[in-house]
Amino acid sequence: MSDLLWQKAGVATNARIMAFTAGDDVILDREFFLHDIAASKAHVQGLANIGVVSGDDAAALLRELDVLATDFESGAFVLDARYEDGHSAIEARLTERMGDAGRRVHTGRSRNDQILVATRLWLKDKLDELEAHCRAIATVCLDRAAQPALPLPGYTHLQRAVVSSTAMWFAGFAEGYIDNLLRARQTREWIDANPLGTAAGYGVNLPLDRAYTTQALGFARMQVSPVYAQLSRGKFEMAAMEALGSAMLDLRRLAWDLSLFTTAEFGFVVLPAEYTTGSSIMPNKRNPDVVELLRASYAPVAAARCEIEQLLSLPSGYQRDLQFSKGSLYHGVRHGLMALALLPDLLARLQWNEAAMRAAIEPAMYATDVAIEQAAAGVPFRDAYRAAANVATHAGSGRTPEASLAQRVSPGAGLDLRLDALRARLDALAS
Amino acid sequence: MSDLLWQKAGVATNARIMAFTAGDDVILDREFFLHDIAASKAHVQGLANIGVVSGDDAAALLRELDVLATDFESGAFVLDARYEDGHSAIEARLTERMGDAGRRVHTGRSRNDQILVATRLWLKDKLDELEAHCRAIATVCLDRAAQPALPLPGYTHLQRAVVSSTAMWFAGFAEGYIDNLLRARQTREWIDANPLGTAAGYGVNLPLDRAYTTQALGFARMQVSPVYAQLSRGKFEMAAMEALGSAMLDLRRLAWDLSLFTTAEFGFVVLPAEYTTGSSIMPNKRNPDVVELLRASYAPVAAARCEIEQLLSLPSGYQRDLQFSKGSLYHGVRHGLMALALLPDLLARLQWNEAAMRAAIEPAMYATDVAIEQAAAGVPFRDAYRAAANVATHAGSGRTPEASLAQRVSPGAGLDLRLDALRARLDALAS
Amino acid sequence: MSDLLWQKAGVATNARIMAFTAGDDVILDREFFLHDIAASKAHVQGLANIGVVSGDDAAALLRELDVLATDFESGAFVLDARYEDGHSAIEARLTERMGDAGRRVHTGRSRNDQILVATRLWLKDKLDELEAHCRAIATVCLDRAAQPALPLPGYTHLQRAVVSSTAMWFAGFAEGYIDNLLRARQTREWIDANPLGTAAGYGVNLPLDRAYTTQALGFARMQVSPVYAQLSRGKFEMAAMEALGSAMLDLRRLAWDLSLFTTAEFGFVVLPAEYTTGSSIMPNKRNPDVVELLRASYAPVAAARCEIEQLLSLPSGYQRDLQFSKGSLYHGVRHGLMALALLPDLLARLQWNEAAMRAAIEPAMYATDVAIEQAAAGVPFRDAYRAAANVATHAGSGRTPEASLAQRVSPGAGLDLRLDALRARLDALAS
Amino acid sequence: MSDLLWQKAGVATNARIMAFTAGDDVILDREFFLHDIAASKAHVQGLANIGVVSGDDAAALLRELDVLATDFESGAFVLDARYEDGHSAIEARLTERMGDAGRRVHTGRSRNDQILVATRLWLKDKLDELEAHCRAIATVCLDRAAQPALPLPGYTHLQRAVVSSTAMWFAGFAEGYIDNLLRARQTREWIDANPLGTAAGYGVNLPLDRAYTTQALGFARMQVSPVYAQLSRGKFEMAAMEALGSAMLDLRRLAWDLSLFTTAEFGFVVLPAEYTTGSSIMPNKRNPDVVELLRASYAPVAAARCEIEQLLSLPSGYQRDLQFSKGSLYHGVRHGLMALALLPDLLARLQWNEAAMRAAIEPAMYATDVAIEQAAAGVPFRDAYRAAANVATHAGSGRTPEASLAQRVSPGAGLDLRLDALRARLDALAS
Repeated sequence: MSDLLWQKAGVATNARIMAFTAGDDVILDREFFLHDIAASKAHVQGLANIGVVSGDDAAALLRELDVLATDFESGAFVLDARYEDGHSAIEARLTERMGDAGRRVHTGRSRNDQILVATRLWLKDKLDELEAHCRAIATVCLDRAAQPALPLPGYTHLQRAVVSSTAMWFAGFAEGYIDNLLRARQTREWIDANPLGTAAGYGVNLPLDRAYTTQALGFARMQVSPVYAQLSRGKFEMAAMEALGSAMLDLRRLAWDLSLFTTAEFGFVVLPAEYTTGSSIMPNKRNPDVVELLRASYAPVAAARCEIEQLLSLPSGYQRDLQFSKGSLYHGVRHGLMALALLPDLLARLQWNEAAMRAAIEPAMYATDVAIEQAAAGVPFRDAYRAAANVATHAGSGRTPEASLAQRVSPGAGLDLRLDALRARLDALAS
Repeated sequence: MSDLLWQKAGVATNARIMAFTAGDDVILDREFFLHDIAASKAHVQGLANIGVVSGDDAAALLRELDVLATDFESGAFVLDARYEDGHSAIEARLTERMGDAGRRVHTGRSRNDQILVATRLWLKDKLDELEAHCRAIATVCLDRAAQPALPLPGYTHLQRAVVSSTAMWFAGFAEGYIDNLLRARQTREWIDANPLGTAAGYGVNLPLDRAYTTQALGFARMQVSPVYAQLSRGKFEMAAMEALGSAMLDLRRLAWDLSLFTTAEFGFVVLPAEYTTGSSIMPNKRNPDVVELLRASYAPVAAARCEIEQLLSLPSGYQRDLQFSKGSLYHGVRHGLMALALLPDLLARLQWNEAAMRAAIEPAMYATDVAIEQAAAGVPFRDAYRAAANVATHAGSGRTPEASLAQRVSPGAGLDLRLDALRARLDALAS
Repeated sequence: MSDLLWQKAGVATNARIMAFTAGDDVILDREFFLHDIAASKAHVQGLANIGVVSGDDAAALLRELDVLATDFESGAFVLDARYEDGHSAIEARLTERMGDAGRRVHTGRSRNDQILVATRLWLKDKLDELEAHCRAIATVCLDRAAQPALPLPGYTHLQRAVVSSTAMWFAGFAEGYIDNLLRARQTREWIDANPLGTAAGYGVNLPLDRAYTTQALGFARMQVSPVYAQLSRGKFEMAAMEALGSAMLDLRRLAWDLSLFTTAEFGFVVLPAEYTTGSSIMPNKRNPDVVELLRASYAPVAAARCEIEQLLSLPSGYQRDLQFSKGSLYHGVRHGLMALALLPDLLARLQWNEAAMRAAIEPAMYATDVAIEQAAAGVPFRDAYRAAANVATHAGSGRTPEASLAQRVSPGAGLDLRLDALRARLDALAS
Repeated sequence: MSDLLWQKAGVATNARIMAFTAGDDVILDREFFLHDIAASKAHVQGLANIGVVSGDDAAALLRELDVLATDFESGAFVLDARYEDGHSAIEARLTERMGDAGRRVHTGRSRNDQILVATRLWLKDKLDELEAHCRAIATVCLDRAAQPALPLPGYTHLQRAVVSSTAMWFAGFAEGYIDNLLRARQTREWIDANPLGTAAGYGVNLPLDRAYTTQALGFARMQVSPVYAQLSRGKFEMAAMEALGSAMLDLRRLAWDLSLFTTAEFGFVVLPAEYTTGSSIMPNKRNPDVVELLRASYAPVAAARCEIEQLLSLPSGYQRDLQFSKGSLYHGVRHGLMALALLPDLLARLQWNEAAMRAAIEPAMYATDVAIEQAAAGVPFRDAYRAAANVATHAGSGRTPEASLAQRVSPGAGLDLRLDALRARLDALAS
């Protein structure tokens, strides 16, 4: 490892302890490195704005930071265990190539606000990705809800209850993902505050141009208090995990539906072949592994949140415990977004098995319709309910799934799925 | 127990099983009962609007519902184990007093949308309370931050780092609670959708006047899809727990600070006497129990969220598992809001021990100031840092805590705590 | 409320703060009250053993403690908000009835070791109950596994895989509950250590007869260190929640099976009628609510564990945060044990639908058998696998479910379900 | 990637979906690979025992499996994305080098029991490591508790309560880690059951020599039921996380103590220099980062458990969701054991600052002693308590910390720390 920024003469280091404290930090920092460089550029220009770094030095530093970004992306620069972390790597690289000018880059900042600003920029990007995934999913769902609907049994308690339809099913998840999109956006707006310039949690004795860095980095507002900048670490990450978790909750329920609908017993859905796999011992199997892994992908998001939550029983001020939050965050975000990214294609291409669905619609599923019709005709509902229940089945009533649906969601009955309302809401949330 | 709404002839019930399924449901429903009545009134009027209930019946039902609310509040009506749940109680009471008209109240709704709408109205109220608590806390913090500041050691890793102040400390939590207020509001807006009229998750064959009930109950929008209404159960509750949890995270860190600051070793804070208690065995003790319980109050909020999260690995459609979410929600909300409610008074009245704080400020805490001054004067920061570190202490430098602070937060230096900005942001969030 | 044990003159109390700190403590203490009395008796006799309380006083105190227990059980003594907690109530009652002798009961103990010993005795009882429930479930499962088996499709990925049987299904849960029984027992043994006599976490200046109280209360060992007695609070509770959770994990999977098997689509299981309920809107429904609530009962156990876990990020020594652990523990244990208690009867009486199960067994489920037979005959398994897979179905092969099973679990084939081994293991764990 | 074991002709695969389903599986499998090879050897010999593989083939397969293990350890064989997972890699390698004999290795087993047996062997090893760490920690604590004790303030509510000592502190954690050792052992015994031979959860039509593989792999018992083998996946892992978590809970509290004791305000402990680090901006700092990371290391263990717990809401039978459990398990175990491994050295070498500790002992800390002495002399305790409390301080009483301790833990007073009892218990748990 290169010299430690904070190393004092005469204090030996111990490899095992160093391995424990450094952890996977520098490897993880690859994920945040470009954002760290971007924030470093804003910091340098800010220092120039207040005359702490000369215009020439600033220009050179900005150039070198751009080169570093390019080298990192091309692989010419590798962020690895030679460095304690990504922050040290930036300063080491600049110093190696520029001498004294490089040693100036850390003026007025701490690794505390440096990691805060890098992870926050990263998290904003990830929340944007989350929003995009939600939009894509909602769009596919609305499109498929607008296609001619097939009758689908509607279940409560996993028991056949009343007639539903493929359109109702898609419309439900469409509304869910519109909400999830909105939650992603609310959350991005909530965390959209610039911590750069708060140093180690108590500010610095320089009139840093925080208004400039806030604007240059595209933040909506400044995080005013240095004390709060530290308090927000982990707290903002947990909010982001909650927004992601919201989208994952709906995904888990959707995956459960598909897991059931692809059983031989239900048989309502056929997945595109590439979403299934085989067994190593049972030659007869095609398994919906992807669906199961989608369902399971809630777990890493929950675990990430749990890990951060466990860290945050602390007094105010920076404490090293928070280092663990970086890995958790990456773990949760990676698995969550990867799962959501598969959904639009899967939803667009899954096929319904009409015959199986029709076969599953029993006459008893019209009982509620019957009871309500009688109630509308003046029979007290509870009496109509009892009468309808006493008819063991409603076979031979001539009722059809289509008619039952038409009473509930047909435009002709003055009612519909309100897809237009949903689509209008989605459009109004255009990014 | 009164007759079960759904009871069929010839099926015996078993007391132990009934006890298991009913759980504490009817007792818990007391918490939500007034909201259930309010939603029932909107439902009745909605039925009248579409001619399913006559105007006279509707007027009578509305009157009886008001009487029920009054009786419930006065104690003349007790919601207890005579009823399976609050929903059954409403119908039973109306039927008992009105006969057939009472049997009409459940036309076109299910207990599924009934509990959804009641808990949602309740949750909106609780999020309003949360917002009010956050506002009160932020206001006290801003007020105290504006008072003459005392120097307070600023810690990182719980080690003395640089000079901070009581004003910086209060300002940090002020900004935190402004954010928490905003999160509460975002969350209330997010869940502000009317599920009434979605029945058991698939709609009903009546042209229910959902626009009316949405407006009458004060919802910002309709929850369009019946399928989604069911999917949102638990999901919205978790979001509310996250918003509450955000305020509790800051409370936990604040309580940690006070727990340390009231030790004999730190001795920075004196709590009002009524916030402390004694020991049953050690006559010498005055203990900051309230502070510890405030810190611990994060736990029931986390547990509530955990309990709901554990329920939600399910296919779409209503399932009885969700019944547990009601008790969890109440447990978390009750403990969280009770803790937050104590905070404004505690913060307003805690006293700082200036002598102890000044005694804790060591000359070495000026080292960063020194290094940055030199950096500003042209020495590369890393060199200035090494030079400042090599000066074992900065005793005798003539520096004072006030001067150190003035360089960072004094208006005279072109910098300040930006309390005006914080206050403006709080005001802009006026309810 | 009666006078507080620790109240000092001149310090006012505040009702709202008192309500916050007391919480539901005194109500919860009803659950632990008889154990608190039992431990108080051991403490009194221990004080007598070392001459700190006279023989006459001890005899009188023991008598009064017995009376208190009787009065509590009969309802003649009500533990309510007149007392700060159950511990205070014992001392207050003894003092009221005995004067000075009553004031001696707290000599050499703290409420800290008092609650520790009461909850530990309670928890040992509850782990015994858990063990008994596991034994009852395992016994029913073994009994039903020994009945003539019906073919049941065996699923992986919820896809039909190979032929299984009702006996295999019951045997699987039998082995699970034997393990769960063992875990309950291990955990009871692990926590079976007496904390009484450790006072507030640092011992007392009396030669308390801890050997006596350890034996009198039926503990297997003394918890030696007072510091550790405090450290074990919460830690032992979490272990108990894990042991309970283990039984609940298997219950959740069992309930999932029943939830699927009772759908119209699978149709493999018919529940006794009293385990189902009806719908308030859909007259046609009979719902397996009990099964869903059994599945959901994992959630309160998980939440209880979560709540305790959240409290335990603390330095050593007692802190008031731990008060919350009592309510969580009760919540989790109550719901977990209530669910497990229903299982033996439900399992004993559920009926299999043979026709539905046979209809669900497809010829392709013999493919693995075919491949392995060929492998046993010398064909490399991977080649045999490919060959078996290429036969689209194995219809017409004349194979039967019974023959397939017989190759795997029939005693005639040198194999069986090893029920004897399981039963022997269960018997060896006789309490 | 090499051919998929289960690939069927004519079904295209999709790179993005493959990446999602494979995840980091093959990289993670490196951790379990040697155990997978060991189990494969037992399986091969078991097949030979029943004549399904010839003696020559078996001998050759065993040789090749040994070569593979050697090559893997030396780096000559790299387990990477060429393979779907470690299981496929073994078969592919054997087939490549041995042709038909290699294709026989998978006869009668599934990847389901293969991963079960590999992770179980691995987990047993890790629980052994956990036990060894607990033993090492308990031993250091006992050794240091036996050294001459220094007075240490004993805290409740973080308030100075009564006199404690360094020996009491170490003895407390000694007893904790003896318990943790026992829990690790109980848990290893609990999971010490062989799943190999259960195939995909329903057994196979071969009389596998399970008694042989059970003995050869060193399992204490056979996991009898194939159905239960699947049910135990995740459940056993959670129990292991609980056992590890128990040791981590004590570590977290110990680290909290050290975090406080190394503040300037307490100042009771000096850490060896290599356990501290510096700051990038504040030249004056030496930070106890290691202590903070030890405290934080509870979080990954909790997160691992959370992730597995989230997966397990499933029907019986294998489902792909469980794949995620492997990564979580590794994450939690790795971080937990790494932290525990540092503790013996840290505890052995931390230094107490006697002057600071003595200075923190106030005369009021003798009040409990005084009250109990009077109670022992006949004054009712509650009266003695009030009297002792009314003496504002006990300054000038001539009492000393040593005398206070001697009354509680001195062998001369018939009491002691019972270190012999603790050491005897530790010895009795010799492995």
